[in-house]
Amino acid sequence: MITVSLPVPDLTLAETLFDQLFQLSFDGKGITREAYGPGEQRAHALIQTIAIGLGFEVVTDHAMNLYVILPGQDRTAPKIVTGSHLDSVPSGGNFDGTAGVLAGLAVLSGWKKSGTVPPCDLCLIAIRAEESAWFPISYLGSKTVLGKLTREDLLIKRRDNQISIADHIRQCGGDPDKIVEQPPLFAAENMRAFIELHIEQGPVLENENITVGIVSGICGSLRYRFASTRGQYAHSGACPAGWRQDAVVATAELVTEMQRKWYEMMDAGHELTVTFGRFSTDAVEADMSKVSGHVEFCIDFRSRHQHSLLEIDRHLQKTIAALSIKHGVTFALGEQTSSPPAALDKKLGQYLQQAASELNISFRALPSGAGHDCAQFATCGVPAAMLFIRNQNGSHNPQEAMELTDFNLATEVLNKALFDYAIRDSARQTPRAECQDEYK
Amino acid sequence: MITVSLPVPDLTLAETLFDQLFQLSFDGKGITREAYGPGEQRAHALIQTIAIGLGFEVVTDHAMNLYVILPGQDRTAPKIVTGSHLDSVPSGGNFDGTAGVLAGLAVLSGWKKSGTVPPCDLCLIAIRAEESAWFPISYLGSKTVLGKLTREDLLIKRRDNQISIADHIRQCGGDPDKIVEQPPLFAAENMRAFIELHIEQGPVLENENITVGIVSGICGSLRYRFASTRGQYAHSGACPAGWRQDAVVATAELVTEMQRKWYEMMDAGHELTVTFGRFSTDAVEADMSKVSGHVEFCIDFRSRHQHSLLEIDRHLQKTIAALSIKHGVTFALGEQTSSPPAALDKKLGQYLQQAASELNISFRALPSGAGHDCAQFATCGVPAAMLFIRNQNGSHNPQEAMELTDFNLATEVLNKALFDYAIRDSARQTPRAECQDEYK
Repeated sequence: MITVSLPVPDLTLAETLFDQLFQLSFDGKGITREAYGPGEQRAHALIQTIAIGLGFEVVTDHAMNLYVILPGQDRTAPKIVTGSHLDSVPSGGNFDGTAGVLAGLAVLSGWKKSGTVPPCDLCLIAIRAEESAWFPISYLGSKTVLGKLTREDLLIKRRDNQISIADHIRQCGGDPDKIVEQPPLFAAENMRAFIELHIEQGPVLENENITVGIVSGICGSLRYRFASTRGQYAHSGACPAGWRQDAVVATAELVTEMQRKWYEMMDAGHELTVTFGRFSTDAVEADMSKVSGHVEFCIDFRSRHQHSLLEIDRHLQKTIAALSIKHGVTFALGEQTSSPPAALDKKLGQYLQQAASELNISFRALPSGAGHDCAQFATCGVPAAMLFIRNQNGSHNPQEAMELTDFNLATEVLNKALFDYAIRDSARQTPRAECQDEYK
Repeated sequence: MITVSLPVPDLTLAETLFDQLFQLSFDGKGITREAYGPGEQRAHALIQTIAIGLGFEVVTDHAMNLYVILPGQDRTAPKIVTGSHLDSVPSGGNFDGTAGVLAGLAVLSGWKKSGTVPPCDLCLIAIRAEESAWFPISYLGSKTVLGKLTREDLLIKRRDNQISIADHIRQCGGDPDKIVEQPPLFAAENMRAFIELHIEQGPVLENENITVGIVSGICGSLRYRFASTRGQYAHSGACPAGWRQDAVVATAELVTEMQRKWYEMMDAGHELTVTFGRFSTDAVEADMSKVSGHVEFCIDFRSRHQHSLLEIDRHLQKTIAALSIKHGVTFALGEQTSSPPAALDKKLGQYLQQAASELNISFRALPSGAGHDCAQFATCGVPAAMLFIRNQNGSHNPQEAMELTDFNLATEVLNKALFDYAIRDSARQTPRAECQDEYK
């Protein structure tokens, strides 16, 4: 490196940009930055303008992901990458995704202003279309970065306007054909590391009064989006117990039993979540004076460990078989969808841990129950790590409330980890290994 | 009486009228006879025309209930009354209500044709608007017969068109003002007995292969129509167990626990039903990847015994208190509505039992879980009884399937019980007493 002292991240820049992004995307209730729509477009244009103004190399790929590059001494060496997404859910918050982009820009700006020239390129990617709220597919942007998006994916239509992803990308200045015909801008093997900073979407750091979380792994999932229970409608007064085929009772027992099993598995050391997010009788047919004949519900299992997902799924199958007989109902779980757990890089996690430790910033390890762009990099073999920032009120809602002081501390951790890693680690040699809880 | 041998009910007439009513009210899917609407109007017009043609005295009251009268020897003596309603739910079946009206007409026609003149008037009432599917109030017609309808009731509006009951009655030729200003056509004390024949709305007779049920009492109810559970929405992957305030899990446990308690109470001898007919997460906010923050549900308890209703309600209160603490949620049960159990007349029940027994028609006692017009008469002090006919597929749906042979047998029972009662019982002296299961 040209300078060897730790540069200071440009936190004022980040603070200003949080405000500007809020102004550009407040919809009267919350923040709306539609994936491949006007809100995301405005956010990308702002970051692009600022990055160009700061003198960075700025490029976009055919999917309009935005790359802000601080050139290193060896331009051909595998690059160190940071980043996150700029899109939001409808009426979401200002920090989910944005925090990682602005933290990266603050780091790059700090390095540039201090004249720091790393051994390899340091690159921020402002990623497109991470949320699945608009199109029924997640991680469109990071999949393109990694050359994984398919021609079929491009035909998927936005939920509300029924216009394809390809057409949306075209409207934003991209070229959908070239996305699938040409290799990605950076090959996976040309990336030494990917580190994503993101707000925590759960309450763990807030409740434990800890500033940052070092993510130990990104959960995989096993899901039944459209499950249902079919019983028999009957008169609530005229149909006695014993003759009922009650879909509400059978499904309620399923929820209660799966909850019991979840706690039993946690006691046995499994790391897992079990959620029944929807549970609804028929809006027209169900009535106070009827035994319910139909319930629709969904199930979401998540874990960092495939064997835990398989164990809870086996118990689900066993339970519905027993409840079908007990209550005379039929369960239809519908299509199972799943994503594999993503192992994060142990060494990168240690850099984050050491940075937080040396900066006296409180941290703990925790798994990410939510999926993230980072998981796309990890599953493509890019050594990957994630840093969570304490955040109140969850995410995907206007009440999202990350404190700027926490953001600043987390950005210091990211800055130092990237710096230490750039200096100390020679070009890509980090083997992928599952990040464990040991640096708790 | 003029003749003393048992007259034969006019079953051919009933069969013809079932067909004609079907033709008049089939909506392409099921039977629709809107209370105080065109479907019910056509049905009343048909019965009125037929009754006049048969030479009966036919009158309507100010609510357009239809009275078909076979004059007795003493026109001033308290009358023996039978009847049921002609309205249906939207796309319901052809037998719920209708069976009781056509059975009554078959009996009256048989008596008239055979020259039978009973000691007192025998009257069939074709009652209006029993179902609460149209207006959010049940038993409009029988309440008018008994002089119980209030001026406030008349202001209630139909669910779909927002037109008041008063206006609907006026459109059908009635006079809502006179309903509340003038005494009813028959005072309660001027009715010796009311016997209603009705299809069973549950599966008991069908499953036990028994033709008729002699109703031992009409259940009261205790209900929470609009109950809800308020928890906290959270990310399904990011919010660990222990921090969740999961409305689905809390409500599912409530259902499961109340089901357990129901079975425990039945084992202890209580007669009771417990039903959660609706259980729904929010259609907009609930999602597969969210812990649910809100559930709406309803509860319907029914029993012939007030003490059973109170015991299950106490358990409900205790359970929600415990689950609120366990899950960090808030239950709001909303307004409690209730109707008292209606005791039926023991002696009338014995006449029905004896008739079935002597005619070699299989019967059993069973409670009515559903409410009926009959309960209005019973609670006003008219000695009342009910006879159920075996019926497949429940009621309130197009698959309602009473066999005509069962209808004919039940009508024979009604015919004989009315005949024996008219001859053997002198003018009104039956004391009201709760009908017990002893003639099982």
